Amino acid sequence: MNGLSVGHAQSAGDDERTRSLLLHVEIDRLNADYAAALDERRFDDWPSFFLEDGQYVVQARENYDRGLPLALMALESRGMIKDRVYGVTQTIYHRPYYTRHVVGPARVLAAQEGEGGLVRAQANYAVFRTRPGDASEVYNVGRYLDEIVRTAEGLKFRSRRCVYDSETVLNSLIYPI
Amino acid sequence: MNGLSVGHAQSAGDDERTRSLLLHVEIDRLNADYAAALDERRFDDWPSFFLEDGQYVVQARENYDRGLPLALMALESRGMIKDRVYGVTQTIYHRPYYTRHVVGPARVLAAQEGEGGLVRAQANYAVFRTRPGDASEVYNVGRYLDEIVRTAEGLKFRSRRCVYDSETVLNSLIYPI
Amino acid sequence: MNGLSVGHAQSAGDDERTRSLLLHVEIDRLNADYAAALDERRFDDWPSFFLEDGQYVVQARENYDRGLPLALMALESRGMIKDRVYGVTQTIYHRPYYTRHVVGPARVLAAQEGEGGLVRAQANYAVFRTRPGDASEVYNVGRYLDEIVRTAEGLKFRSRRCVYDSETVLNSLIYPI
Repeated sequence: MNGLSVGHAQSAGDDERTRSLLLHVEIDRLNADYAAALDERRFDDWPSFFLEDGQYVVQARENYDRGLPLALMALESRGMIKDRVYGVTQTIYHRPYYTRHVVGPARVLAAQEGEGGLVRAQANYAVFRTRPGDASEVYNVGRYLDEIVRTAEGLKFRSRRCVYDSETVLNSLIYPI
Repeated sequence: MNGLSVGHAQSAGDDERTRSLLLHVEIDRLNADYAAALDERRFDDWPSFFLEDGQYVVQARENYDRGLPLALMALESRGMIKDRVYGVTQTIYHRPYYTRHVVGPARVLAAQEGEGGLVRAQANYAVFRTRPGDASEVYNVGRYLDEIVRTAEGLKFRSRRCVYDSETVLNSLIYPI
Repeated sequence: MNGLSVGHAQSAGDDERTRSLLLHVEIDRLNADYAAALDERRFDDWPSFFLEDGQYVVQARENYDRGLPLALMALESRGMIKDRVYGVTQTIYHRPYYTRHVVGPARVLAAQEGEGGLVRAQANYAVFRTRPGDASEVYNVGRYLDEIVRTAEGLKFRSRRCVYDSETVLNSLIYPI
């Protein structure tokens, strides 16, 4: 447990460890903010989590594991993401439901320092669905595979890929994962 | 990734970021301690998570979102919370079950520094229920909306509001969320 | 919120708090790495999370709570853990399924400093199962009870005990929890 020890000597290794752990917390916080925006139905906030040319992809695990490009949804820019918000809130007919995202702790796979630096991270998620009058149920589980960039406005997704385990039920996927 | 850099110059912004991230971890730890007390059925420990005049509220999302005061349960002090423990463990007839709380990373919405300072935070939760002889099942999902005060005995809830997504099943709600 | 304040005076208490919180994050990261190895089916990586004489135990809550030694699975060394990997991947006939671990924030119960120091920690988990062509479902929920040692190769389990809430379904338990 070679933690932070301010005031006496501290090795560069401790410093590096501290930076890395704090970055994990920062990604956890980003995931919590993202989940809250969706679960509170603040859909207009959703595009702001992405870079202008950010990507949002929802893909079955089988396709991802085989390297197949086939995806349930692939939005290639913030503009397309905004269009999706419009569809979800204005035009797509669907039976309404609530979502609840419970996200596990993040793994940081690679990290560049400073503004503009890229962080590659992933986290497991479970999304629960509650339809009016029904019990809550497991809806979609999988993992986020993320490319995150540090900007002047905070961390933004260059790419968020939601790789889900089950191929069923998803004809009814309306709200973002 | 402008983390902590002890020994050379560090901006006030880095310092602020570090403080904020550590506070998130501290709230996660509080949530883990709270979940463990309930899931391990240490119900007598439950009131100690609250201030003397602390509130515990369990409320359907629909009522919360509409600003309605109607709640499934509203305990207005540690005394009432202790009474509830007595009811759960001594007087209320119910079929027993285990609970398991899996809580997502916390979001800190506002934070005052120092002892007596108030922290407003939230976190998504999923509670699973296991009845003897049955499989585990999704029981209650939602989010905690918390007002937390730093005291000499650690962080305490001035208010914990459990806002759940589904209105069904809950006639059977016995143990705390 | 007496966080880290580099450059001006900081009490030993702040320092201790910071160390403790960072250790929590480190355990969260270990849990995320462990979950990812299993969920990505990198089963050959699984033994490397344990010490050479590390133990892996899967036990029903009822037996654990009563202090009974009876366990569904008890592997007493990394060698036995490797044998189990061989069984799972090569010899045991079973209907395949995906797993998805969502782990809550860790609680550190005790921590010794420095290399070789022992950390006792626990965390709640939910494992979801997805069979080909089926929806994802709650599979196994419970808590990890861990003894973790800091080695030159990072944190390793001296013992990971998975205490699960439900005794049903588990005749079909194949992959590690």
